[in-house]
Amino acid sequence: MGIVVLKFGGTSVGDVAKIKATAEQAIREKAQGNQVVVVVSAMGKSTDDLVALATVINPQASTREMDMLLTTGEQVTISLLTMALQAAGQKAVSYTGWQAGIITEAVHSNARIQTIETTKIATALADNQIVIVAGFQGMSENGEITTLGRGGSDTTAVALAAALGAAKCSICTDVVGVFTSDPRYITGAQKLREIDYDEMLELANLGAGVLHPRAVEYAKNHQIPLEVRGAHVTETGTIIKEGTLLETKQVVRGVAFDDEIARIRVSFTSITAMNIACIFTKLAEAHIDVDIIVQSIGEDDGPSAVSFSLKEAALDEAVAILAAYKDVIGYDSLVTEAGLAKVSIVGSGMVSNPGVAAQMFTELRQADVDIRMISTSEIKVSVVVPQAKMLVAANVCHTAFEL
Amino acid sequence: MGIVVLKFGGTSVGDVAKIKATAEQAIREKAQGNQVVVVVSAMGKSTDDLVALATVINPQASTREMDMLLTTGEQVTISLLTMALQAAGQKAVSYTGWQAGIITEAVHSNARIQTIETTKIATALADNQIVIVAGFQGMSENGEITTLGRGGSDTTAVALAAALGAAKCSICTDVVGVFTSDPRYITGAQKLREIDYDEMLELANLGAGVLHPRAVEYAKNHQIPLEVRGAHVTETGTIIKEGTLLETKQVVRGVAFDDEIARIRVSFTSITAMNIACIFTKLAEAHIDVDIIVQSIGEDDGPSAVSFSLKEAALDEAVAILAAYKDVIGYDSLVTEAGLAKVSIVGSGMVSNPGVAAQMFTELRQADVDIRMISTSEIKVSVVVPQAKMLVAANVCHTAFEL
Repeated sequence: MGIVVLKFGGTSVGDVAKIKATAEQAIREKAQGNQVVVVVSAMGKSTDDLVALATVINPQASTREMDMLLTTGEQVTISLLTMALQAAGQKAVSYTGWQAGIITEAVHSNARIQTIETTKIATALADNQIVIVAGFQGMSENGEITTLGRGGSDTTAVALAAALGAAKCSICTDVVGVFTSDPRYITGAQKLREIDYDEMLELANLGAGVLHPRAVEYAKNHQIPLEVRGAHVTETGTIIKEGTLLETKQVVRGVAFDDEIARIRVSFTSITAMNIACIFTKLAEAHIDVDIIVQSIGEDDGPSAVSFSLKEAALDEAVAILAAYKDVIGYDSLVTEAGLAKVSIVGSGMVSNPGVAAQMFTELRQADVDIRMISTSEIKVSVVVPQAKMLVAANVCHTAFEL
Repeated sequence: MGIVVLKFGGTSVGDVAKIKATAEQAIREKAQGNQVVVVVSAMGKSTDDLVALATVINPQASTREMDMLLTTGEQVTISLLTMALQAAGQKAVSYTGWQAGIITEAVHSNARIQTIETTKIATALADNQIVIVAGFQGMSENGEITTLGRGGSDTTAVALAAALGAAKCSICTDVVGVFTSDPRYITGAQKLREIDYDEMLELANLGAGVLHPRAVEYAKNHQIPLEVRGAHVTETGTIIKEGTLLETKQVVRGVAFDDEIARIRVSFTSITAMNIACIFTKLAEAHIDVDIIVQSIGEDDGPSAVSFSLKEAALDEAVAILAAYKDVIGYDSLVTEAGLAKVSIVGSGMVSNPGVAAQMFTELRQADVDIRMISTSEIKVSVVVPQAKMLVAANVCHTAFEL
């Protein structure tokens, strides 16, 4: 009972049949005595089509006009979904971001939500309506249409849930929940009943791809229970909330992996923080994301070096930038390695179990997996390994930690 | 010099090339020292596509949700046109109907504009920007998205011109102006340099199809000079304004014609206003438009009758309705005739030239054209004739009145 916010992504509302199925799920949720708010994205590939059209007209289109263009996508979905609900005899009303009272920063393409004025939605809910809200979009205080950037619709859903004091926010997607690892590749990967916000954040950042980290952070900050569930199935999903560790004894909750990783090792005769800062400033200026960074003392009294990992697709550009600024950075040489992958274990229980990393390395060595880089946080251990060994490594970890 | 409002319909912004051409025309207008506002419709057939999608989901979709859906069409066009202007180095900004301050009645699908709050547009114009506004749409005072119905974008353009005190409102379309008759069929049809609001209203209502009558009325009420011109040509169009009669000596300014007309003659033994009211109330309830109505005394002391014309496509339904209400209406019999057409001459000068109608009838008789019905107003004479004779009749009139 209470207010429930459901969010459906573009794939889940990608055609007429799916829009009707979404309407049915919203009606089922309402039949359980809940007040229902549904947040939707643009249909299927419609955003991509609009972007393609804009690119032909102006490859450097302003972010303001891109926001103006792209927000039509969700507006189409909200009206069609509302029509589907009304066709099924359910009272319903659609609101764009600005109508729903979603006030953002005065920034285009990547605005943050500042406040939500919920009077309109609350009135409609009290009138027994299902309220359909356009995800991803809002309005600045001076009446400009803005968008929230990547993961925007998830964020809209969580922010609405927080503003409305919702009992739950369900992210309805093309997977039925959060798994201990990717069930397509890992034998025995299982759906989790519950998971901690922080664990989910690490998994989300590690390419598990189910939920955008920003939405998880927002939910954590406002302590809104999030559910990840299948879009058009009745099966319960995975609940993401605070302190699930208390209920479980497992140290490791999930194994994530990500392929097409490359590594660059930059060697110096003598190295200072200035040299290192220069490398990552130049790469950041080119919008190249760097993941793991390791500073190493050279073997056998050789030169010092800094190594970092990045997506393979960005390798050539990164090398070109480093070459262009060789004198500024002041390095001697660099070597690159492509064909790598990252495997990570995540679990809040690691904080109080220092032997976890050691156990992971031992298991990987026994499975003959070379480790090229290591990165750890309080609730995560990541290793970079040859891509050919990625699934072996992930399966080994999944089995070793009894997931 | 001053503010100029340009309006481009769906065909004129139907693809990327046409959007770029529209941007060029706006820039040319600005280069002449004007401040430029451009009103646009949805691209090409995009509105039809959205309607088709809605129909699949809910054939009785609410007008509120249809407005929500359809207004995305113009929003796509305004952003793309603004991107095209910016790509050409011109400062520009797009506004939806609600952003442009277009406040309408709280009615969906056919709202009238109540006020326009022009501060935002005026500020942008003063900042040397070309302002692009979504036609056809507005917002009610309680924040609902509304549409203006048929001819909506023309009305938006004229209303903005009035609110901004514009020097001119140019409707840029796929014809280069208003002609004395349709140049595809009438030898010697010529583009008019100027025409009166009232003359244009009669022509617009008579199927000349260039401008929606509602926009002409709005322009007349606010005394905004309207120009009808080609969308992507530099050629001057036709100016529609008050009192052009003073400058011209011509009694008849245009010949309009409309095919696929049918006629129904309903006969009574005795006829009262009540009988007649009943006929047209029942037809109006079924949304059947009736055009010319003639009440005639029967020939040779035969029964009295009322005759009226309507579109041929509505004939069967009209007959079915009249049959269903035969006793209520109290008529004896009815006869129908399809395969007719309407030919009209229009001109403000007729008011002071009573012989015009007589001349028209004489010319038609000499050309062996049967006249089935006649309707006159102060500035128009319409006759219903066999469709096979429509173009003959129109050409005869066009020649006779020296157009």
